Amino acid sequence: MAQVDEARVARVLERLEAGHPGSQLLVTDPWSIFYLTGFYAEMFERFSGVLLRAGARPVIFDNALYPIDAYDNADVVVFNDTDDLASVLMDRIDPTAPLGIDASMRSGFLIPLQEREAASSFFLGSYAVADTRAHKDARERELMRQSSRINDAVMAELPALVHEGVTEHEIASQMLTLYRKHGAQGFSFPPIVSFGGNAANPHHEPDDTALATGQVALFDIGGQYEGYCSDMTRTFFWGEPDEESRRIYDIVRRANEAAETLVAPGVRFCDLDRAARRVIEDAGYGPYFTHRLGHSIGLQDHEPGDVSAVNEAVVEAGMTFSIEPGIYLPGRTGVRIEDLVLVTEDGCEILNSYTKEPCRIDR
Amino acid sequence: MAQVDEARVARVLERLEAGHPGSQLLVTDPWSIFYLTGFYAEMFERFSGVLLRAGARPVIFDNALYPIDAYDNADVVVFNDTDDLASVLMDRIDPTAPLGIDASMRSGFLIPLQEREAASSFFLGSYAVADTRAHKDARERELMRQSSRINDAVMAELPALVHEGVTEHEIASQMLTLYRKHGAQGFSFPPIVSFGGNAANPHHEPDDTALATGQVALFDIGGQYEGYCSDMTRTFFWGEPDEESRRIYDIVRRANEAAETLVAPGVRFCDLDRAARRVIEDAGYGPYFTHRLGHSIGLQDHEPGDVSAVNEAVVEAGMTFSIEPGIYLPGRTGVRIEDLVLVTEDGCEILNSYTKEPCRIDR
Repeated sequence: MAQVDEARVARVLERLEAGHPGSQLLVTDPWSIFYLTGFYAEMFERFSGVLLRAGARPVIFDNALYPIDAYDNADVVVFNDTDDLASVLMDRIDPTAPLGIDASMRSGFLIPLQEREAASSFFLGSYAVADTRAHKDARERELMRQSSRINDAVMAELPALVHEGVTEHEIASQMLTLYRKHGAQGFSFPPIVSFGGNAANPHHEPDDTALATGQVALFDIGGQYEGYCSDMTRTFFWGEPDEESRRIYDIVRRANEAAETLVAPGVRFCDLDRAARRVIEDAGYGPYFTHRLGHSIGLQDHEPGDVSAVNEAVVEAGMTFSIEPGIYLPGRTGVRIEDLVLVTEDGCEILNSYTKEPCRIDR
Repeated sequence: MAQVDEARVARVLERLEAGHPGSQLLVTDPWSIFYLTGFYAEMFERFSGVLLRAGARPVIFDNALYPIDAYDNADVVVFNDTDDLASVLMDRIDPTAPLGIDASMRSGFLIPLQEREAASSFFLGSYAVADTRAHKDARERELMRQSSRINDAVMAELPALVHEGVTEHEIASQMLTLYRKHGAQGFSFPPIVSFGGNAANPHHEPDDTALATGQVALFDIGGQYEGYCSDMTRTFFWGEPDEESRRIYDIVRRANEAAETLVAPGVRFCDLDRAARRVIEDAGYGPYFTHRLGHSIGLQDHEPGDVSAVNEAVVEAGMTFSIEPGIYLPGRTGVRIEDLVLVTEDGCEILNSYTKEPCRIDR
């Protein structure tokens, strides 16, 4: 028999009660469902959910297309594509209590519940799960470490794949095999491979651009290990770099290290962003660092919790997030250096150990 | 200057007015936005949208992270991650009119609009775009044909990649390169490669299973060409198949052809499902055909509009959908045969021409 993780459910309900006493919560994010129940299915346009309420058994709603085990400590309600979903849910939702809704739930599921007054009111309730997921427990910390160890090992294989004229796509298409070789189950996001001027676009997708002497080769890559994501960026030189690429590499590296040095319980996310951004601004490249410093990470590559100028929340033990400053010179070149960090009770562990020394990979 | 497609907007508004007179519509599905504006960005947890209303200029809401052209015939409102999104939207939404919401919009965007009474009421409005997208125009039909021609060409390359002991993952990892070689930009969905007993699970993901003599090799694959998706399944034999695999192949093929023969304007989707299902039921395998017969397809691999027992809607010219019966014998074997069809004014075109003859690929 499968088990809902009762300790995690209790922590979620404690946070829910603090914000919305007497309410119930419908969890629909597939990774939040996995976190609470061990059951994972990417539902695309279909529904799955877990209904939580203090003092009640959790109820798991499962589409019959996705076989699920029986649970010792939860009810499982199986429905079909041809069932009226709102009715299925309303059989278990308390119409006299407020209902917390997952921010990621499709409006196509919410609006029928509202039209039929399935609950006394509806509010955004996923903060209770997001806050819980943000604090990784001992087992999760070990999985995050292992996931980033794999990412280091994959990064270490990349220089040998590079040669004059290789295309971004040719490198990217070899990566899934590398992740699997090193024990990951898949990508945490599609790999970014950017050569030369393409590195100036932080969202560049690998294409048929061929590598030429004097260009940078930027790799922003991540795998997934037992559900937990890694995410790291390194920028290499192919041949002798021009003066400016070398200069911005040095600035970005110092920005990365300035922020990482500060990570510890009690510092604010916005102060980390500030520390890195100041290094880049002081060097005169402020306008070319066009994104937040980082993002929280765990079962998903992006989890709630930005490392940004507007997030005044305080860093706490068990949190994991990226530190990824960059400088982007449109049409010319770009550098980004990214590590994951894990906040510990008295400081932090940097989960990536792959070198940040400037590195020519053509020899 | 970029252009919103005014003919498409007019057709969407005509459908919206018919269902909800005097209302406005907030389109947030990224492919629906592409369909109307030519702008595409996968936003993940971020917002983008197009606000439509009869007699008013469309308004495109764009996150500054995703650069967008100026539009001749639409307003563009650019916002940042640090802006209050509900306020940005409420500057342009008419609070005295009902607001249609996309079924796929995140509740995290909807609930703040409701709490602040951004509109007089909220309803599910994406039917207006879905119905319009379902009727492919002449250019879209040609792109659907070309996308499936590419899929035929990729399928034709697969038998040569197969050898005794090859793993599902080894085949799947070569496919993106094949799609790009034949002119597609990427996958329409991650390829399904299932050997032997794995073919009994319609949702199997490629793993390290190695192919052995006497097994089936099932490939359910699709690419994307200028946004338009292909999707086809063929099931091959590696070595002499057992009697039952041969028998169910023949049944599934006849089911596929029974449905495809009927496709024309005026037939109901449920009747197509019935025609295929009856062939399988009459042969005694009804309980082993565990899913709907097919799904609509276009800019997304799955679009609203099932080919299923409960969809009594009538097929119309310009619609494109899959016909994909299967028989799944748990733990033993499975067969699925899938084509895409395009409904024409007087019948249909089957968009896949790759053979459906039973085929041994070990010689």
